[in-house]
Amino acid sequence: MKLIIGNKNYSSWSLRAWLAAREGGFSFGEIDIPLFIPGSRERILAHSPSGKVPCLNDNGVLVWDSLAIGEYLAEKQPALLPADAAARATARSVTAEMHSGFQALRSKMPMNIRKDYRGFGHTPEVDADIARITAIWNGCRARFGQGGPYLFGRFSLADAAFAPVCFRFQTYGVQPDGAAGEYLATMLANPHMQDWAAAARAETESIPAEDLYD
Amino acid sequence: MKLIIGNKNYSSWSLRAWLAAREGGFSFGEIDIPLFIPGSRERILAHSPSGKVPCLNDNGVLVWDSLAIGEYLAEKQPALLPADAAARATARSVTAEMHSGFQALRSKMPMNIRKDYRGFGHTPEVDADIARITAIWNGCRARFGQGGPYLFGRFSLADAAFAPVCFRFQTYGVQPDGAAGEYLATMLANPHMQDWAAAARAETESIPAEDLYD
Repeated sequence: MKLIIGNKNYSSWSLRAWLAAREGGFSFGEIDIPLFIPGSRERILAHSPSGKVPCLNDNGVLVWDSLAIGEYLAEKQPALLPADAAARATARSVTAEMHSGFQALRSKMPMNIRKDYRGFGHTPEVDADIARITAIWNGCRARFGQGGPYLFGRFSLADAAFAPVCFRFQTYGVQPDGAAGEYLATMLANPHMQDWAAAARAETESIPAEDLYD
Repeated sequence: MKLIIGNKNYSSWSLRAWLAAREGGFSFGEIDIPLFIPGSRERILAHSPSGKVPCLNDNGVLVWDSLAIGEYLAEKQPALLPADAAARATARSVTAEMHSGFQALRSKMPMNIRKDYRGFGHTPEVDADIARITAIWNGCRARFGQGGPYLFGRFSLADAAFAPVCFRFQTYGVQPDGAAGEYLATMLANPHMQDWAAAARAETESIPAEDLYD
């Protein structure tokens, strides 16, 4: 099993798939392709039919897009989704909502782990996105979080979906109160998240368009 | 089971969930909420926690976002996903790629079933999106389409994902050659698609921002 991913400092989609694979206990190799430099598109297309990262190659079975990779891994490791049907439906709902939404947050607070942009990036639309994410976290923790510190108790694909938001909140100094704040701390202390962040800080390539507030 | 949806003429996300529910053989009621008129956001929020359509209410279990609704329905009706693991992984990959991508096509060729905008909406980015969609359709038909006329033979969630694109191609006069063109004709002749289109044409509300080329 090989996972093709972009820069760990910037590639939020890559983080989702990588974290799900790590938390699922899979043994996998990484092919790291720095994005937005000459030749990177061609290098990605050699591995990924959509021309995007992440892409999973499991003995020739290609799975692309972080959400499809998550479902593929969850078929092999069902613990990646909640066991209860209603909890599982909610986990998929918030995962898909994160997948297709929150455009304001994405554009004004791009993932950029090694920067300190505290206080930057706020607009009314971004603050509405933050409020909705905080409401999702509080709601999942209250309804489904009894069995552990993650959104649905133990780690699930929903946590992988929100992992980049956790790094964004750290970079831009967004600190929710209460259960959502505790959840943020749990995610940032996750050992795989810390591995990813350390690798991001060690990268030397930069994508100027993402270094928005320098 | 109740499905909360927006205007059939415009709401591409609603179509995906509705078509999956129809093709899955589910019996469901509809709550139709015209979008972008005074009070519509409040009406949606009364049913859907994300404030968006579609949302499925299955005896109190709420599932929102078309992709999560699709997976929820496929748990009850497994025929909505290909039976073969590699085909299923590909179906989820192209579904998720459609879910999070093709922004140029979405913005320049919004779904608008009752209009004839043939020739409108083309830009280099839109044409690149059309080329990628055509490549996906040709690829799925060639690799997985032996058992029927849909992307993976029989109807699956991947077809539901591309259903709005089929209506867009009709409205904007996009006609792929070969297998992709035959697939487009199959989708537009699907009886549930025809039911949806007839209902869209019968609607009286309009969303001026979507009537881009009048």
